[in-house]
Amino acid sequence: EAEGGSSDPVAAKPAGSGTTYETLLVTTEDDITTIKLNRPAKKNAITTEMYNEIIAALEQAAKDDSVITVFTGAGDFYCSGNDLSNFTNIPQGGVEDMARRGGELLRKYVKAYIDFPKPLVAVVNGPAVGISVTVLGLFDLVYATEGATFHTPFSQLGQSAEGCSSYMFPKIMGTAKASEMLLFNKKLTAAQACKLGLVTEVFPDSSFQSEVWTRLKAYAKLPRNSLALSKQLIRSVEKERLYAVNDAEVELLIERWTSDECFNAIVKFFQSKAKL
Amino acid sequence: EAEGGSSDPVAAKPAGSGTTYETLLVTTEDDITTIKLNRPAKKNAITTEMYNEIIAALEQAAKDDSVITVFTGAGDFYCSGNDLSNFTNIPQGGVEDMARRGGELLRKYVKAYIDFPKPLVAVVNGPAVGISVTVLGLFDLVYATEGATFHTPFSQLGQSAEGCSSYMFPKIMGTAKASEMLLFNKKLTAAQACKLGLVTEVFPDSSFQSEVWTRLKAYAKLPRNSLALSKQLIRSVEKERLYAVNDAEVELLIERWTSDECFNAIVKFFQSKAKL
Amino acid sequence: EAEGGSSDPVAAKPAGSGTTYETLLVTTEDDITTIKLNRPAKKNAITTEMYNEIIAALEQAAKDDSVITVFTGAGDFYCSGNDLSNFTNIPQGGVEDMARRGGELLRKYVKAYIDFPKPLVAVVNGPAVGISVTVLGLFDLVYATEGATFHTPFSQLGQSAEGCSSYMFPKIMGTAKASEMLLFNKKLTAAQACKLGLVTEVFPDSSFQSEVWTRLKAYAKLPRNSLALSKQLIRSVEKERLYAVNDAEVELLIERWTSDECFNAIVKFFQSKAKL
Repeated sequence: EAEGGSSDPVAAKPAGSGTTYETLLVTTEDDITTIKLNRPAKKNAITTEMYNEIIAALEQAAKDDSVITVFTGAGDFYCSGNDLSNFTNIPQGGVEDMARRGGELLRKYVKAYIDFPKPLVAVVNGPAVGISVTVLGLFDLVYATEGATFHTPFSQLGQSAEGCSSYMFPKIMGTAKASEMLLFNKKLTAAQACKLGLVTEVFPDSSFQSEVWTRLKAYAKLPRNSLALSKQLIRSVEKERLYAVNDAEVELLIERWTSDECFNAIVKFFQSKAKL
Repeated sequence: EAEGGSSDPVAAKPAGSGTTYETLLVTTEDDITTIKLNRPAKKNAITTEMYNEIIAALEQAAKDDSVITVFTGAGDFYCSGNDLSNFTNIPQGGVEDMARRGGELLRKYVKAYIDFPKPLVAVVNGPAVGISVTVLGLFDLVYATEGATFHTPFSQLGQSAEGCSSYMFPKIMGTAKASEMLLFNKKLTAAQACKLGLVTEVFPDSSFQSEVWTRLKAYAKLPRNSLALSKQLIRSVEKERLYAVNDAEVELLIERWTSDECFNAIVKFFQSKAKL
Repeated sequence: EAEGGSSDPVAAKPAGSGTTYETLLVTTEDDITTIKLNRPAKKNAITTEMYNEIIAALEQAAKDDSVITVFTGAGDFYCSGNDLSNFTNIPQGGVEDMARRGGELLRKYVKAYIDFPKPLVAVVNGPAVGISVTVLGLFDLVYATEGATFHTPFSQLGQSAEGCSSYMFPKIMGTAKASEMLLFNKKLTAAQACKLGLVTEVFPDSSFQSEVWTRLKAYAKLPRNSLALSKQLIRSVEKERLYAVNDAEVELLIERWTSDECFNAIVKFFQSKAKL
């Protein structure tokens, strides 16, 4: 099977891990731990529960005996980003309370990527939206299928960039290219994202899974400490800055989530969705 | 009109701004403030007066109710850079005094770009030289017509890089590419500059104005606070470093402007010009 | 002669330099000092003696009256990297002592590149491996012949990146591309390295030497102080960070060189070599 064990019927309870996830399939095979978003009917949109499960799965993968950790999506979508229904259950404390809680969860979520101690690989099996795109700058490798797209429509929803993308995207591709994504909602094809350095390599849809997993299995046989320590070395020089960027992004998003501008943009989004 | 209102006969006195410029056309239309260098007979070379007017125009655009600010040139040239006649009126204080004053003006000029709080877009309508190229790293978007070129002939004139390019260009395109521009006077085509990430996108000369302005008018309809705050977020992580880079660049240029090497190179330049 | 004086029969004792090297050919001609690795039978692999000679040659080139310094290799290889025989002469102090000494030498070697005060140009005449690749991020220009390749097989040998590549490569090409080189041993063609910004320009094998030297001779006629000070300006903003990165890389390598994982990987390397 080319899909790294994800088709294993008992994948949700991998031997040795002891953890069951509601929204993820987490498996370890051939020294590779795979975290697969498993909400294909909702295009793998990330709910509050999922954020928490992904954080837990990353913490577990950091400690298990795998060499490489892979992040991917079930079905045809990689991930459609933050589930906007996260904004519809206003808690007793009101919008401010919701924004504050959402900000804390986001900060913790992004920190789990910043701190991840092993090579982290995104296997982008389809369209990627929002936070699933912005955290890609924190991955070590990003393999994409030809049909994948990369879209961060923040300003359209009255919001702003997260996942350290406000720092990493200009670093990777220059401000002139990054701004069109982060400020002006430009959607990139896989080929465009590869040219700009956000994606390591693009594969034909038909051979994507087999080519990527063949390569990853070979990579996972390399000396494990050398890989982990080299990855940590590369990350270490940017770590303090990434924490600061994460903080600044979260602070701005909390402001945004309590703004009329954002509220109106999200209402407009749900209205246009309702019309479809 | 495809050119953003700049052909308006009263453009030099736009309604609501109250400011008249001698060397610029400044207009606001469709939520876009356009600052157009208006010295086409001199290829929009920037005189001391123009530096001061551009600083004033940027300060005004920062405060007006536009969403996006555009910088462009009148005629066939975008901008031929620093007007070297700025060096020919030696004040009473001598060359040292001229260099010190020139340095202070330059520092203030570049600071106006670093601090600009809204999306800033360069519409590069033709060849760009010197400081009009180096500050491009401080813009959020750079759209170029096919025939535009990008040239920073500093060492040829015994001078050195400014506009934060000594930091931003290596960041955008890597040292191996940036050095050929900043040290060795390589002139880039629009297509080359786009590949290297200095330019967002290149358009055919024939449709440049209409394509760019159609896009910008759409962008200007996005939530304004989201755009401004997102741009400030991206800038904030680099701001202190950009101030320091600006200072270091200005300090070196003051040294250069008082050096024999620079003096001889500029004399040579005027002599070769006189022969044409 | 197109090869910058390196074919001069008295090249090892250039007029005015007074220094003779055992492993290098160092010449100064047309305001260009050329440091040529001269161990072609061993693909210019760098021994301990060579590290020391290159440090001395860089110190001398920094002080001589040349405008540009060129680094290249004799024969068909540019450089095959660290000579692994450096690891086979275990001193009395044991592996720890060898690792400590090797680390100090490496730190000093890379510091010589960080501190080099003039434009430094790599003329990559053939395959480049290991540390000859990683320090390229510290060069100002990198010209490569079509057949050159760029390979940093660190993790394969249980080791980790040096030459400030753990910082410069992600800065130049983005993490998604840099990781495949630095963590996963991907070998790049010259064309690929050029696209990623590690290489300035690629030339056909047949015209490489003549095209590159024609260009360099023209560059060396530019105002020398302007070039040197501009290069130092670009470097200055990163210098403290580069020192810190060099330290961190050396510290990790010392750990690696004393690890079982690295020992076993190197033994395996020598065994596979012995079988050929």
